[in-house]
Amino acid sequence: MTPMPDQMPDPSSPEAGRIVVSVDAMGGDAGPGVVVAGMDLSARKNPDIGFILHGPEDQLKPLVARRRSLAGRVAFHDVTEVVTMEDKPSHVMRHGRGTSMWTAIESVRDGKAHGAVSCGNTGALMALSMLCLRRLPGISRPAIAIHWPSRNPQGANVMLDVGADVRADARDLLQYAMMGASYARNGMDLRRPRVGLLNVGTEEHKGRPELKEAHALIGQFADKANFDFVGFVEGSDIPGDVADVIVTDGFTGNVAIKTGEGTASMIGQALREAFRYSLLSRLASILAITSLRRLKKRIDPRRSNGGIFLGLNGTVVKSHGGSDATSVSAAIKLAFQLAQSGFAEKLAARVASTAELTQDADGRGVNSATKEKDDKGQA
Amino acid sequence: MTPMPDQMPDPSSPEAGRIVVSVDAMGGDAGPGVVVAGMDLSARKNPDIGFILHGPEDQLKPLVARRRSLAGRVAFHDVTEVVTMEDKPSHVMRHGRGTSMWTAIESVRDGKAHGAVSCGNTGALMALSMLCLRRLPGISRPAIAIHWPSRNPQGANVMLDVGADVRADARDLLQYAMMGASYARNGMDLRRPRVGLLNVGTEEHKGRPELKEAHALIGQFADKANFDFVGFVEGSDIPGDVADVIVTDGFTGNVAIKTGEGTASMIGQALREAFRYSLLSRLASILAITSLRRLKKRIDPRRSNGGIFLGLNGTVVKSHGGSDATSVSAAIKLAFQLAQSGFAEKLAARVASTAELTQDADGRGVNSATKEKDDKGQA
Repeated sequence: MTPMPDQMPDPSSPEAGRIVVSVDAMGGDAGPGVVVAGMDLSARKNPDIGFILHGPEDQLKPLVARRRSLAGRVAFHDVTEVVTMEDKPSHVMRHGRGTSMWTAIESVRDGKAHGAVSCGNTGALMALSMLCLRRLPGISRPAIAIHWPSRNPQGANVMLDVGADVRADARDLLQYAMMGASYARNGMDLRRPRVGLLNVGTEEHKGRPELKEAHALIGQFADKANFDFVGFVEGSDIPGDVADVIVTDGFTGNVAIKTGEGTASMIGQALREAFRYSLLSRLASILAITSLRRLKKRIDPRRSNGGIFLGLNGTVVKSHGGSDATSVSAAIKLAFQLAQSGFAEKLAARVASTAELTQDADGRGVNSATKEKDDKGQA
Repeated sequence: MTPMPDQMPDPSSPEAGRIVVSVDAMGGDAGPGVVVAGMDLSARKNPDIGFILHGPEDQLKPLVARRRSLAGRVAFHDVTEVVTMEDKPSHVMRHGRGTSMWTAIESVRDGKAHGAVSCGNTGALMALSMLCLRRLPGISRPAIAIHWPSRNPQGANVMLDVGADVRADARDLLQYAMMGASYARNGMDLRRPRVGLLNVGTEEHKGRPELKEAHALIGQFADKANFDFVGFVEGSDIPGDVADVIVTDGFTGNVAIKTGEGTASMIGQALREAFRYSLLSRLASILAITSLRRLKKRIDPRRSNGGIFLGLNGTVVKSHGGSDATSVSAAIKLAFQLAQSGFAEKLAARVASTAELTQDADGRGVNSATKEKDDKGQA
């Protein structure tokens, strides 16, 4: 980190009394200007937040200097190397140290920041996060969890994994259930979250064999881990109200959320076209503008932006690659809230007790049982 | 089939000059009344359609008698046994003969009808269809294809498989590509459809190993099979305009379409609530009613209802279990159009030439190559 100028309090010092979010300025498609604009939005709403900003200082300083709300609240970490959207995770694993993405995560590992935010390449961010922060003991596959707008009273469901790993066996799915429930308990104030396992039908005989195995495992540990298991759920339940937490592998989860986003965006476009169709419909759209804005706010993916990486020693939030200032600010808010609630520590404790639970129950560690088994897809 | 009364022309006779659709009256959640109402809607719009109706004749006759449009256009096949939504496919395979679902398919096999429609249990309908009609030579896994509203000029994309089988290896995905392209060519008048393979990213290194293998295979045969291969596509492209045909396994496809449906339905509900919110917004909704109806029509899943089973010796259309009259009528229309265009014969010819193509290329049959291989999920 560059030395702080004297007149500027160190935002990562406990004296500042602020929660410090470490931000990778270089990840997003739109460049660092949008990232700084997102920080500005957050800083204006939240006096308790400070930043460490990672990227080329000569480029970032002028951007930050233009935002009054950021004065005295940003420490710079001068890095010129960046991870691009095209870099393969395998390349990044070998050459990623010294990029702005790496140092953003490193600040969390070194205790200088309470959480990291990046709009960069998801695969690279997960690879570097695993390398730098390491997995929680007992976790074999970390997961990415997101909020998805839903019919539930809390307005959103938690879904995981949405893309950390294209594979997941029954034990991984059990861990996702535990981590997702813990996240819903802390991030959504749900005392006893309802967990559903995503499948092609709700009948117990349906789906792939690892799902039937996971169904049995999750049902067995639900009570001890303080959540309700509602069994199999379908794609239509992701925005529904039968479960608060939707558990699936990262391949299925990623396709599902992108299908949902694509559908929502297509309907949004069709709606705009419908209102432009005639003079009467244009008038109607003016009359209904408040209602339509309320609707947009409710289903706007930018406002629930932020995939949280679960299963690591530290908090990393992935913001959408195409993030604008609103989305970046939403991701920063999520990192802030998780830090404030002490979620990382609570999750670590939960995972530790879960490892014991599963060990107690069958005399094996969480990871030893089915890891070597092929996850053959069967009818 | 019960003997026809003298005064009624046999709708399945060539003299009638009609395309005959064989309808399972007993499949849907709402009972046979809705099925007959759907037939009525179709008959009123289409003078060239006739029906064979399968189910308890004493129950069905009065329902049909009330619809003037159906007079002289329905032959009854009296069957009392039905397949329920709860029946497992394995049970139906053993005990399904003699149900209304079975006889509806049988009419197609026996050349009495040009296509069958059922709102029943998907797994059972596919199992009985495979048993009764048999797979086309060279096809190892039949698929279910649907239309999905999209940004493309034709207003919809073809997606398959959406639930015939939870597994699919690279060769199956190649066959889905060929069958989907053939369907798009005939059902959508696209001379050279663009085919995309669903994955978690568009980069070639992403996804599961069977997808990378399928990517190579499909690319190799695209030109010979007269379609364009656009490579990997993502969930957001299902309603998009980069491909006309989306190829995936039945597990992922099923989750994706149900997520899309659930999202569309949640937005619809939020939209209705937004318009009910205030006096002004209520007024707006009245002014915009024509535009909103147009929007609804465009994205209404009932109007693109009907999953077509591909890869069998005959046409079977699965209508949604919760179908209303509009949806049943849409499924009947689809069966009619496919029969009229001679699609079943064209597909059979295409599959036969495809089997030759792939055989020529690598000296192996379409089904011999990767069938025994485990489809392990890997990053």
